[in-house]
Amino acid sequence: MINRLMNRIKELEAPIVVGLDPTLKLLPPQLFEASKANFGETAEAVADAFFNYNKGLVDAVADLVPAVKPQIAMYEAFGIPGLEAFKKTVDYCHEKGLVVIGDIKRGDIGSTSEAYALGHLGATELGGTLYYGFDEDFATVNPYLGSDGVKPFIKVCEKEKKGIFVLVKTSNPSSGEFQDRLIDGRPLYEHVGDKVREWGEELMGESYSYVGAVVGATYPEMGKVLRKLMPKTLILVPGYGAQGGKGKDLVHFFNEDGLGAIVNSSRGIIAAYQQEKYSKYGAEGYADAARAAVLDMKADIAEALG
Amino acid sequence: MINRLMNRIKELEAPIVVGLDPTLKLLPPQLFEASKANFGETAEAVADAFFNYNKGLVDAVADLVPAVKPQIAMYEAFGIPGLEAFKKTVDYCHEKGLVVIGDIKRGDIGSTSEAYALGHLGATELGGTLYYGFDEDFATVNPYLGSDGVKPFIKVCEKEKKGIFVLVKTSNPSSGEFQDRLIDGRPLYEHVGDKVREWGEELMGESYSYVGAVVGATYPEMGKVLRKLMPKTLILVPGYGAQGGKGKDLVHFFNEDGLGAIVNSSRGIIAAYQQEKYSKYGAEGYADAARAAVLDMKADIAEALG
Repeated sequence: MINRLMNRIKELEAPIVVGLDPTLKLLPPQLFEASKANFGETAEAVADAFFNYNKGLVDAVADLVPAVKPQIAMYEAFGIPGLEAFKKTVDYCHEKGLVVIGDIKRGDIGSTSEAYALGHLGATELGGTLYYGFDEDFATVNPYLGSDGVKPFIKVCEKEKKGIFVLVKTSNPSSGEFQDRLIDGRPLYEHVGDKVREWGEELMGESYSYVGAVVGATYPEMGKVLRKLMPKTLILVPGYGAQGGKGKDLVHFFNEDGLGAIVNSSRGIIAAYQQEKYSKYGAEGYADAARAAVLDMKADIAEALG
Repeated sequence: MINRLMNRIKELEAPIVVGLDPTLKLLPPQLFEASKANFGETAEAVADAFFNYNKGLVDAVADLVPAVKPQIAMYEAFGIPGLEAFKKTVDYCHEKGLVVIGDIKRGDIGSTSEAYALGHLGATELGGTLYYGFDEDFATVNPYLGSDGVKPFIKVCEKEKKGIFVLVKTSNPSSGEFQDRLIDGRPLYEHVGDKVREWGEELMGESYSYVGAVVGATYPEMGKVLRKLMPKTLILVPGYGAQGGKGKDLVHFFNEDGLGAIVNSSRGIIAAYQQEKYSKYGAEGYADAARAAVLDMKADIAEALG
């Protein structure tokens, strides 16, 4: 899956992942109205509208980007119906040939991490057939519990040829509270980066490892250091766009081969229609606005790398 | 909810939480057979059997313990049907008057953490009524992302009078890889403990805060330090029993008032029937075995504290 992802990034010249993070505020109103007409104003209606929203977005951008990243929290907020919409979204994205990065930030001890890994990336044999729970291609993983928490994911990845992205330096303002604290003269995130490289060596793809890292676009100087520390690690870069990360900041996250990073944008694309810049599309044209925003993002990154 | 939990601990003289962490290996075979007869060998059968397993356990121990802690990973491993069993378990435990600690170890940035908090502890207004997703009473939270990741949970807790337990020092063997590293001469987990105390001061119950901590029974010396560092923090202590924590190790996690900690046991109780000690109950008597194991655990802790 890492090889497929790298190849698609090259083919499309788009190191871009679209964050499918629907919320009631971002949802084009006509979609919620239509779902309410069928389901009343219920969680089922929200879930139906979220899926239709995603479907429109995916149809509009599937030929432009290699991957999408649904943030499971947005679906989990609406309980079981919400998670059904998450699962339907994963399946629909697969139908459209997209790589799906489940932004689940799970992490627990041994057998519990294994359960998460099986539920999201792997399968359990039942009655002679394999039951896949959510079946994403990649998942984000929290490293706070150490190797015990991460290795069960790697084991499942090895079997399924899937991958993970381990949180190293997150994009949020308070990420430094613990991640930036100095240990033997180096910040915690660098120590986590060391481990990610080490874990990654156990499971290499053709040019990059199945074990990737998350490093926020909002911290480009740290990205520069981490890029060198983890040369074979694909870096998933959130925080571009709405969170403040700019194209020119991104150059540090890439290797000299022009690869090595994949940049996420969520609100900046899926709710582009709410921005002044794309207002001509209106809510009805939200998918076209998203496509335009992806093309602009692609140009912005190409300019920064060029 | 923290006041209710503390009162129930006192009334029952049982600072005990039963971990409802079903797996295929722990499940009494007759339950899976019965579910397979209805659903075939499918994820739906697993989910049905997990719920029936939990129901039997809860019926057997609800008068002995204040709280249960379902580990969501075990359910998530079986996708949507699994999560439906999780939700049914939460609801059934509420019917039986138990406090439910959702062991979800979520944690993300700002609005994403808020979505998790709303999905698990809070509600979203839809059509003039409140929609509760999973509706646990407490949730476990991962601190790696800092205050941005934790405060949205606290905000929801304040509104709902619910609580969280933040991971401080986890019970697994490799928890020290990052958690024990020294920062300004003190291990990371103490710095996290400082923050937990600080966050907890914002939302106090009568004697303990709505913001608790997770500290593994497998690290009693660290528990001693953390107990003093966070005097008003209820400590959720996993790792007793199957993971190796002993009754005598637990004394350090309690305050001088005999309160301040609640000890989890999962396998040691729910699969007591598989132990030599409780083998007379057999798989059919798994619930009675669990009840006997809870009574033994209660005595073990009382002896240690006495």
